[in-house]
Amino acid sequence: MSKCDIGLIGLAVMGENLVMNMESKGFRVAVFNRTVEKVTNFVNGRAAGKNIVGCMSLEELVDNLEKPRRIMLMVKAGKPVDDFIDKLIPLLEEGDIIIDGGNSHFPDTIRRCEYVESKGMRFIGTGVSGGEEGALNGPSMMPGGTPSAWEYVKPIFQAICAKVEDGSPCCDWVGENGAGHFVKMVHNGIEYGDMQLICEAYQLMRDNLGMSAEEMHEVFKAWKKTELDSYLIDITTDILAYKDEDGEPIVNHILDTAGQKGTGKWTAIAALDEGVPLTLIGEAVFSRCLSAMKSERVNASKALGGSYQKFNGTAEEKAAFIESIRKALLASKIISYAQGYTLMRTAAKTYNWNLNYGGIALMWRGGCIIRSVFLGKIKEAYDRDPSLSNLLLDPYFKDKIASLVPEWRTVVASAVLAGVPTPAFASALSYFDGYRSEFLPANLLQAQRDYFGAHTYERLDHERGEFFHTDWTGHGGNTSAGVYNA
Amino acid sequence: MSKCDIGLIGLAVMGENLVMNMESKGFRVAVFNRTVEKVTNFVNGRAAGKNIVGCMSLEELVDNLEKPRRIMLMVKAGKPVDDFIDKLIPLLEEGDIIIDGGNSHFPDTIRRCEYVESKGMRFIGTGVSGGEEGALNGPSMMPGGTPSAWEYVKPIFQAICAKVEDGSPCCDWVGENGAGHFVKMVHNGIEYGDMQLICEAYQLMRDNLGMSAEEMHEVFKAWKKTELDSYLIDITTDILAYKDEDGEPIVNHILDTAGQKGTGKWTAIAALDEGVPLTLIGEAVFSRCLSAMKSERVNASKALGGSYQKFNGTAEEKAAFIESIRKALLASKIISYAQGYTLMRTAAKTYNWNLNYGGIALMWRGGCIIRSVFLGKIKEAYDRDPSLSNLLLDPYFKDKIASLVPEWRTVVASAVLAGVPTPAFASALSYFDGYRSEFLPANLLQAQRDYFGAHTYERLDHERGEFFHTDWTGHGGNTSAGVYNA
Repeated sequence: MSKCDIGLIGLAVMGENLVMNMESKGFRVAVFNRTVEKVTNFVNGRAAGKNIVGCMSLEELVDNLEKPRRIMLMVKAGKPVDDFIDKLIPLLEEGDIIIDGGNSHFPDTIRRCEYVESKGMRFIGTGVSGGEEGALNGPSMMPGGTPSAWEYVKPIFQAICAKVEDGSPCCDWVGENGAGHFVKMVHNGIEYGDMQLICEAYQLMRDNLGMSAEEMHEVFKAWKKTELDSYLIDITTDILAYKDEDGEPIVNHILDTAGQKGTGKWTAIAALDEGVPLTLIGEAVFSRCLSAMKSERVNASKALGGSYQKFNGTAEEKAAFIESIRKALLASKIISYAQGYTLMRTAAKTYNWNLNYGGIALMWRGGCIIRSVFLGKIKEAYDRDPSLSNLLLDPYFKDKIASLVPEWRTVVASAVLAGVPTPAFASALSYFDGYRSEFLPANLLQAQRDYFGAHTYERLDHERGEFFHTDWTGHGGNTSAGVYNA
Repeated sequence: MSKCDIGLIGLAVMGENLVMNMESKGFRVAVFNRTVEKVTNFVNGRAAGKNIVGCMSLEELVDNLEKPRRIMLMVKAGKPVDDFIDKLIPLLEEGDIIIDGGNSHFPDTIRRCEYVESKGMRFIGTGVSGGEEGALNGPSMMPGGTPSAWEYVKPIFQAICAKVEDGSPCCDWVGENGAGHFVKMVHNGIEYGDMQLICEAYQLMRDNLGMSAEEMHEVFKAWKKTELDSYLIDITTDILAYKDEDGEPIVNHILDTAGQKGTGKWTAIAALDEGVPLTLIGEAVFSRCLSAMKSERVNASKALGGSYQKFNGTAEEKAAFIESIRKALLASKIISYAQGYTLMRTAAKTYNWNLNYGGIALMWRGGCIIRSVFLGKIKEAYDRDPSLSNLLLDPYFKDKIASLVPEWRTVVASAVLAGVPTPAFASALSYFDGYRSEFLPANLLQAQRDYFGAHTYERLDHERGEFFHTDWTGHGGNTSAGVYNA
């Protein structure tokens, strides 16, 4: 029997579906699972008659693979990944490739890549997005790790991944060590942001405009025909139309407490560590936290008054306001992606990654949760200028946001006056206004820090890097804090 | 010669000033510094003729102390603290007390406390706030660690700390292991928030109302006579009046790029880890990051238009708007403290700390950077109800914020329309509106998560803890994600 092209460990739904996807593209796949009955069940079930080889041990799996061996782990992030790496290394040869396709945190991937390379093998940590359906029919894939491993993995990954209209694969090499999982993490953070933005538009329509789920369904259906066209708008359209057994829109029966799996939080923490203002995703994560405080909110709505001011314009004014909400959503979305890309650029400097920003947009263009027409525009922006410092400075996005700003302001101001929370719309606008500010008020803040802590400040009329201290009170002395760190 | 009451290691300005403070309160202090010339210089200089014993070795320091020995480290946070702990342990006896008075990160303090206790000694990690002047004349002190150590440290700490008007000390036992440093960290986060709020008020006056530093000085001077009375308002008043050599207000010459030392970031990360919406401090940290991107902002101000709409009301309307800004600042400040206290309450559950929330307000009431009349009101709120779940539900703060809300909304809406960034004012208001919302839009978000990831949802018409999954597309099956985690 011929050897297999790739081995896959971990036959949960994601793993099984990836195997089926690989096999359907002509690859011969060896599979293993810690609980080996799963292997038997799979081989006798979905995989029956397919080019799939069930293995009862890691040794058997390794023996069945072409060299350099390619072994993909689809196991739970965390210790199981480390455990399998440690079990595999003694069985492998120099140059063999271990691939982690789970939702690992990028610092773990950096560590594992170094470790596996120190043993003479190669490592890839790859983001895989698109859920179970994506895994089967074409996920978005974001691989990073040992650069020399890419040529061996590329034919398989680019065969199984999602494709955009022109056939381009939604998978390309991201960068060294943890770059793939970092980019996947940012993807998830952006997903948090996109979902929050849709929720704010929904709440404005529901609680300020008093619209029914059916009416909102029609709005989102119309928005699909605009620049907002995306998977999340698609499913929102579907959701709002979905009737429960009692004939009511099911969305009205669902509890408003959002869950999270931590990757949005990781993105916000990474931004804080890198010193990058990622305000929209930060607010999106915190909004989920606030939604989880349901019983406290119910009490607070009684104690603090839980009502909203209702929109009282004409039907025409209402239609215009709905269009303004769409523009606010789009403008905020531009900010979110601008912030996310700034985070990637900054992290790339920190970790010495050579990221291809247009390529990342293309990877996200199809297959994953945030897939959208919008990402095609981002791809074009980075094609025009691969070293673009901020998406807002690209000619297309600059003009686009300029066309949206007036109504964006109106929506946020209206929400503020009506009492409907729009944390992401508002923080995006604050960022925009801060970013376009030549002078922020941080001069006062620096004066305060120098006053109470002798932290020194720079001056507008001197070169950067020259630090000054003022004896504000007349009895603090001229000694700056720098001196105290001796 | 009699033994010393306490030993202190680390004669930088903070350490020296604490020693002088202790000695002035009648304590006999032994001192040591890694570079021993500093000991000689200190003993022959500021400490000459005082009840201060210079020691040339750790052994000498230890020999000079009453038992149980109390040794306070005032060294740089990080490795130096661990190094001194390791050097001290072999010299100490059971029950001796090591105190870390540096700005250590609370997880380090949790670890060190456990380690020192495992060796039979006791450990205290204490926040010390108030800068060099506070250290000398009365800092705010937030000690936590081995509970049995407190009785031995209390007489010294409560003698040297700041006092409020009625003589109450701004130092009390915070809680077990890392509680003291955690509370100090939240203090620093709140300091970030308070400073950002003042900056936003300042920018609105400067850029929307077009006021001069002198005019703003008068405003802040007047605000000192209101509930905003605080150290930071005090120094802002001073700063705005301070003239540079050229006769210009010096604040106009200072570069608007804020520095940070990382403790605000730690607070935001702790909030993300605890799942607590700490939006205002988060925005304050991100605002400093944005301010640091000066050259990019200068470019963006040209590309995106960097101007603000000017206020064009009458003098009376302007005065009214200034008063509205004051109310927006106060309302936002209430939110910031409500969020900070929620973080402490949540962390206390996570780490099993028995925190005294009124006591914490009292510790912050004097001596530290955020000291204010306002903290007296918080103390009263927790005296009324020590288990208060959120500051906003206390009768005083509930009524206070209700009286501020209309003008707070006006200010945020005006800023949004004028293009002046007010990220902290706005995020505070979004939080308030979200917190008082019985129904947030997270029902839609849960539907989305169930649609693309089979994450399940709860229902309003069923008990909490019952999870449902919908086959949204008709071909996803009725299997929820929970099943896939097998």
